[in-house]
Amino acid sequence: MAMVDPLPVIFPNGTGRQEDNQLDSSFSIVALRKLPHLTDYVQNLQTFTNPLEYNPFYHEPARFYISPSDVILRQIVYDLASGFPVATPHLTYHRAGPRKLIFYDPFHVRAAIVTCGGLCPGLNTVIRELVVGLWELYGVRRIFGIKAGYRGFYSTEPVPLDPKAVNNWHKRGGTILETTRGGFDLVKIVDAIESRRFNQVYIIGGDGTMRGAVKIFEEIRRRKLNVAVTGLPKTVDNDIGIIDRSFGFHTAVETAQQAISAAHVEAESAVNGIGLVKLMGRSTGHIALHATLSSRDVDCCLIPENDFYLEGEGAGQDLIPRSDAEKEEKDESGNPVLLDVGGWLKSEVKRWWARDHPRELLTVKYIDPTYMIRAVPPNATDNLYCTLLAHSAIHGVMAGYTGFVSGPINGNYAYIPLLDVAQTRNVVNTRDHKWAWVRSVTNQPDFLK
Amino acid sequence: MAMVDPLPVIFPNGTGRQEDNQLDSSFSIVALRKLPHLTDYVQNLQTFTNPLEYNPFYHEPARFYISPSDVILRQIVYDLASGFPVATPHLTYHRAGPRKLIFYDPFHVRAAIVTCGGLCPGLNTVIRELVVGLWELYGVRRIFGIKAGYRGFYSTEPVPLDPKAVNNWHKRGGTILETTRGGFDLVKIVDAIESRRFNQVYIIGGDGTMRGAVKIFEEIRRRKLNVAVTGLPKTVDNDIGIIDRSFGFHTAVETAQQAISAAHVEAESAVNGIGLVKLMGRSTGHIALHATLSSRDVDCCLIPENDFYLEGEGAGQDLIPRSDAEKEEKDESGNPVLLDVGGWLKSEVKRWWARDHPRELLTVKYIDPTYMIRAVPPNATDNLYCTLLAHSAIHGVMAGYTGFVSGPINGNYAYIPLLDVAQTRNVVNTRDHKWAWVRSVTNQPDFLK
Amino acid sequence: MAMVDPLPVIFPNGTGRQEDNQLDSSFSIVALRKLPHLTDYVQNLQTFTNPLEYNPFYHEPARFYISPSDVILRQIVYDLASGFPVATPHLTYHRAGPRKLIFYDPFHVRAAIVTCGGLCPGLNTVIRELVVGLWELYGVRRIFGIKAGYRGFYSTEPVPLDPKAVNNWHKRGGTILETTRGGFDLVKIVDAIESRRFNQVYIIGGDGTMRGAVKIFEEIRRRKLNVAVTGLPKTVDNDIGIIDRSFGFHTAVETAQQAISAAHVEAESAVNGIGLVKLMGRSTGHIALHATLSSRDVDCCLIPENDFYLEGEGAGQDLIPRSDAEKEEKDESGNPVLLDVGGWLKSEVKRWWARDHPRELLTVKYIDPTYMIRAVPPNATDNLYCTLLAHSAIHGVMAGYTGFVSGPINGNYAYIPLLDVAQTRNVVNTRDHKWAWVRSVTNQPDFLK
Amino acid sequence: MAMVDPLPVIFPNGTGRQEDNQLDSSFSIVALRKLPHLTDYVQNLQTFTNPLEYNPFYHEPARFYISPSDVILRQIVYDLASGFPVATPHLTYHRAGPRKLIFYDPFHVRAAIVTCGGLCPGLNTVIRELVVGLWELYGVRRIFGIKAGYRGFYSTEPVPLDPKAVNNWHKRGGTILETTRGGFDLVKIVDAIESRRFNQVYIIGGDGTMRGAVKIFEEIRRRKLNVAVTGLPKTVDNDIGIIDRSFGFHTAVETAQQAISAAHVEAESAVNGIGLVKLMGRSTGHIALHATLSSRDVDCCLIPENDFYLEGEGAGQDLIPRSDAEKEEKDESGNPVLLDVGGWLKSEVKRWWARDHPRELLTVKYIDPTYMIRAVPPNATDNLYCTLLAHSAIHGVMAGYTGFVSGPINGNYAYIPLLDVAQTRNVVNTRDHKWAWVRSVTNQPDFLK
Repeated sequence: MAMVDPLPVIFPNGTGRQEDNQLDSSFSIVALRKLPHLTDYVQNLQTFTNPLEYNPFYHEPARFYISPSDVILRQIVYDLASGFPVATPHLTYHRAGPRKLIFYDPFHVRAAIVTCGGLCPGLNTVIRELVVGLWELYGVRRIFGIKAGYRGFYSTEPVPLDPKAVNNWHKRGGTILETTRGGFDLVKIVDAIESRRFNQVYIIGGDGTMRGAVKIFEEIRRRKLNVAVTGLPKTVDNDIGIIDRSFGFHTAVETAQQAISAAHVEAESAVNGIGLVKLMGRSTGHIALHATLSSRDVDCCLIPENDFYLEGEGAGQDLIPRSDAEKEEKDESGNPVLLDVGGWLKSEVKRWWARDHPRELLTVKYIDPTYMIRAVPPNATDNLYCTLLAHSAIHGVMAGYTGFVSGPINGNYAYIPLLDVAQTRNVVNTRDHKWAWVRSVTNQPDFLK
Repeated sequence: MAMVDPLPVIFPNGTGRQEDNQLDSSFSIVALRKLPHLTDYVQNLQTFTNPLEYNPFYHEPARFYISPSDVILRQIVYDLASGFPVATPHLTYHRAGPRKLIFYDPFHVRAAIVTCGGLCPGLNTVIRELVVGLWELYGVRRIFGIKAGYRGFYSTEPVPLDPKAVNNWHKRGGTILETTRGGFDLVKIVDAIESRRFNQVYIIGGDGTMRGAVKIFEEIRRRKLNVAVTGLPKTVDNDIGIIDRSFGFHTAVETAQQAISAAHVEAESAVNGIGLVKLMGRSTGHIALHATLSSRDVDCCLIPENDFYLEGEGAGQDLIPRSDAEKEEKDESGNPVLLDVGGWLKSEVKRWWARDHPRELLTVKYIDPTYMIRAVPPNATDNLYCTLLAHSAIHGVMAGYTGFVSGPINGNYAYIPLLDVAQTRNVVNTRDHKWAWVRSVTNQPDFLK
Repeated sequence: MAMVDPLPVIFPNGTGRQEDNQLDSSFSIVALRKLPHLTDYVQNLQTFTNPLEYNPFYHEPARFYISPSDVILRQIVYDLASGFPVATPHLTYHRAGPRKLIFYDPFHVRAAIVTCGGLCPGLNTVIRELVVGLWELYGVRRIFGIKAGYRGFYSTEPVPLDPKAVNNWHKRGGTILETTRGGFDLVKIVDAIESRRFNQVYIIGGDGTMRGAVKIFEEIRRRKLNVAVTGLPKTVDNDIGIIDRSFGFHTAVETAQQAISAAHVEAESAVNGIGLVKLMGRSTGHIALHATLSSRDVDCCLIPENDFYLEGEGAGQDLIPRSDAEKEEKDESGNPVLLDVGGWLKSEVKRWWARDHPRELLTVKYIDPTYMIRAVPPNATDNLYCTLLAHSAIHGVMAGYTGFVSGPINGNYAYIPLLDVAQTRNVVNTRDHKWAWVRSVTNQPDFLK
Repeated sequence: MAMVDPLPVIFPNGTGRQEDNQLDSSFSIVALRKLPHLTDYVQNLQTFTNPLEYNPFYHEPARFYISPSDVILRQIVYDLASGFPVATPHLTYHRAGPRKLIFYDPFHVRAAIVTCGGLCPGLNTVIRELVVGLWELYGVRRIFGIKAGYRGFYSTEPVPLDPKAVNNWHKRGGTILETTRGGFDLVKIVDAIESRRFNQVYIIGGDGTMRGAVKIFEEIRRRKLNVAVTGLPKTVDNDIGIIDRSFGFHTAVETAQQAISAAHVEAESAVNGIGLVKLMGRSTGHIALHATLSSRDVDCCLIPENDFYLEGEGAGQDLIPRSDAEKEEKDESGNPVLLDVGGWLKSEVKRWWARDHPRELLTVKYIDPTYMIRAVPPNATDNLYCTLLAHSAIHGVMAGYTGFVSGPINGNYAYIPLLDVAQTRNVVNTRDHKWAWVRSVTNQPDFLK
């Protein structure tokens, strides 16, 4: 567990808030990951009763409230032979959900929602549920969409959103708010937040976006603005740390089956046929691994976490020959552009075959389904995930938390400091059972020298 | 947590096996749910090295082995205000996975696989993965399918299965082994197991089937047969306790969206239109609840866990008027036949409308998609689940465990005593947040007097 | 060909219009089905140049115009042994498409669109394409949707429609205009058309609706109103005569495959399993026949055109026992309610089995997918059909034709008198090859005594 | 109609067969396209009664038989202003279907089935229906699949096929017989046909394959072999002449919607977004045109039939700059490899934008769904088409016709000389209404200078 908090704060965490102090200090064996809170730097914040109190659908709201003492254990798998923690505390996170006391008068909330980075199934559902949840659960009436990603804060006019406007968005792929990469200008963004008088900022994006969100949160704290910032981690690649998985991932694995099936058919219909599918994931192979285990039509699965060698020569991004022009290329976020490993692999396979089997047929069909995967609407599992994620974020913000992320930990929605999430990455663990199963299922060699 | 073990056994659990005794007894704060083991009643069992040891795909098998000290915590959500357990131990379960020492010579294994009860997406995948896993991971060559459910043990000839025979089964709905309800005759079944010389029995079925599996296990133990029995819980309704969810459930929720969408279209296309969908679940509303949260097109969601009243009169199975003939009707398993609450509700709604709005149109379209849901092939998520489930079961059986069930607990595959699973049921908790969210999302009243 | 025009008018048809008179009368071997035209009863109608003339997308519009001399042959299959017509003329229909001269100033058009009867995939596409076509091809700006079917003319306020309003409608099932059955009040409807000053009426509906449209057309002609009426035949059942097929039919056959597959899986997964699917079609079996030929999983296909007998007793609507209450029941259009032949068949099969195989299992799963079929969005084939259908209707109306229907004849879009279509029905011809193929493919007996 | 027979043979066609001579010669206004027949060059052929005569499913077979006098009109659309044919005869084709007398003893039939060229949805259905039809309609028991395309005749062992072997093939994409391009060696192929004693050869392939089939037919005729050869035209691109459309085309248009939807979502979710989809069709734009009209999400549709110019420079295959290596490249059939016009267009668009809008964002997402389209199973419409196509071919071959193709003409299945089909191509007519509609629907300019 290399990604955990280096300095777990022993509970009670001393935020000075009344609820926290009600907790008995004898539970010294539990460490609770502290969340930033508006009260950390804003004076004299007023509290309000959660309007759920008067909501007929929550006729016994008391039983639904989550208190700061509701926690979720981080580690749940142990090898008792290596000891069960007694001296060191169990790391826990705050459980997500509505709090009895909130730090916003819904009447004065001005919420901004922005989507950044690439497309991911479920983006529109998250936006929709933020709007519907703020409107219906808390009675917030001023909710705005920021168009075009981070640069939209300072270059476009916010779009007012209400439940009617976002009706049916959850059935559409992409993001109706539009998204871009890059455009992160910290001062301009926070200035815009201030001048637009937004006091809740919901940022939906991937790891780069989360790092930007940390900076926005820190700048807001530095300016002592009464503005909560929350991140809703979005990556179809599932490479965000700490949380169980990110939204859109299940849909991506499902949709990838179409490409795998097509490649399988192409391979089986040819005399010496190979079907090659490139699945996205930037530098992690989660989609490839899960799609392989789900399909069983795959004979070989290569992932970035595992170097592979072709005829004694190593492969991978670093090893694909690049022209000088390609060496210079960067995307809008300033990252080096990844080369098309699929196209390269296809030509390598053909070259090898032509050399060793000069008189035999070979058919290699290469499929890159990236945009046909990431642009689809979310499936039911992801739609539900996005709903719970958005509602969790809203409850956390209304409770005054800031600089945090919502997400499932061991199946339960929790609040996690933005910084923790921005600093960790989730890659495929090639030492665990799933990867061994992939190799066993595919019967592939290890491609190591 | 009413369903937990009444007598948690403090670890070390004293099975007499060497690995268990290696554990330090100082971890008194953890209770490990004991699993039945062949060594409990069979003398002088020989152990063998797991053939994964020589499998090139597991070239460092040591790192993949799971030992009896690998455990999973049962409870992971706490309200610290109510105390974190110090005096009472944490309940844990054995983690699923391959063991270094196994209690079967693969060459002598004769495995039987049977499916019982109703259809569920993923049945064929589970069968296929049991066959492929036994064959490829352990080198087992004598694997048999029992046709027609429990009665097939004593009334049909077992069908030899191998990877070629089960190829592509994971893409088909239903069960190619065929299934029936009822037919449970304990003596005949165990006699057949004995006479066919099966020493591994994999039973795939729902709660009734699991109760039967307990009896088979107990009878086998009574006869001191060297036969391991494992249950693979199958219920599209997700009403099996302890485990996170059952296979096929995600597929069912996904497929239910079609019916909901159709009902929504029918309702919106009529002047006063109502679309009524009956989703299965016998006496639990998991599918209805998840399908509602995933769809957002639902205005009202009724589940068996929540009584409802129409115009002051209570409703539910007990309250639908039955003819005398209907009162007598039983299904093959001897359970009373559930009445068609959807048809009844449709007529009630029409009756009420005709009385109160005699001159206005009303259109009620009623959809019962049950067989169109349960007969589909599993989606990618469930296909993966079924693969991991089958492999977990195989590893457990090879390790000599018996009378157990495999399944995910808090996201990790664990082994659970069959008896525990057979005795618990998972119903919708109408006091938790998801149900409140359903009500909030649908804006439905509470239908209580 | 019992449905053809009893009095084919020999061309030239003497409408008095200039274009018609340009035709040489020597082609006496061709009979052209005359269409009603506004000039038949309205005096001094002005003509205008088709605005396509100035449309950059039709930069050589001359080549796109269809003239009244463009015709489509009705009969194209002949047995030469029975003679090829020499003395009797070939029946032809006017080909659909834009005319060079139109009888409306687009600026003065007020178009009304209404949908009546049951749902059918493609309804929204037809509406959308009528709006988009009128707007973009002809520059019409006053287009109105009539809500709730025929009764909407006199009981609701028309809804203004424009391309933005109908954007994306073609991807949604049902009809956003809402539909009802019944509500046909001739005088009220024509009064409303007059008072609303509609001069183009597009009526989308089934055979009952088309009979209503004939009456509206005749009443309008009686009042000598300058109003064109056109019917767009809608029936998922494909039971409308003369035209090749109706929209939504391909989608219905496609969607029915899901139900058939589910029934097939249920049957194959049981010991003695029967899967029973009821496909809609009121009194014609087109969907059942096509779905059977498309699926190949069907062992027996029953259609209303073919009586069948169970154990010596005849079956069919007339033969299902009805209670007295059922005998009285009528739907909103006044037609007798059809009984659920599927439910009845299921119970008959069970009764027969219980008598003849008292000790053997039987599983009958009955699926009625009606609303899950008719409420889906149209597939690509039907979407294209709907587009061409709507554009054909617009061109015909702008050309001054009235009391007509558009539809494909032998693959080409034609104009057909409303009366002809309203008077004919298309049933499955059990004497042709398709039905023999069904029987051959399914290996079913003829079910006749 | 440039593709029609240059020498239409006035009926009776003088084949010397008895049925033909029964026809009255007075129908001089009809020309019937003569089909090659085994009796043209094989002496003393015996005839047999069609076994359908004894088939209980065709209990009145007389009414199902098709005679040589059953014909289908080729031209059905006329502009009467240009004259209706009186002096020149109407071209007609033989109608497909079972004949009363057949020229094969089913017991002596040895049928070979081969698939050549690229994949197309429905290939497996055609194979399956040929097998099932020969087996069940005619009682043929020796049916063989030739693997690997034309080269399989002389390089692989034929695979015996029966209904059990091909069960469920219609639900799978690709071709289970495997296919290759090239490998056409006339002498080896006909030698193999002779030595294997095949007397019926069913060749499924595209235009190149059909040209090969003509040569095989001619060589067989030269050798006076009693072997019938029939072509089943396969091209997902719909570029085969005379017939209405080819199988797989509807499925391709349907599946293309996914790519278009994804491109649409990508475009709408970006600030200045363009989604670019390349649809297959080699040198015809049928799929692109139909997919555009079906989708309505397309803003611009380019097809090979219509040259286009980018900024004054012409584009198209001839105009894409090629490297010297690319100029040499040929595919297995010896055709020049087509360049990736999509990739080139993407870079051109980016270049133009960078020059003219240097400071504005642009996102171009390019999708090439080719293999995800052509490898899918056929939809219901195509499945039905393939069934009727295969049965038509069987009936024609059993009736002694050879060197012919089956396919729908104006919606009815007909027999057409192989030579005619091999010599014609079906391209998009940019002068007809559909293309104008595409331009009107997309609002695209004409891209001409």
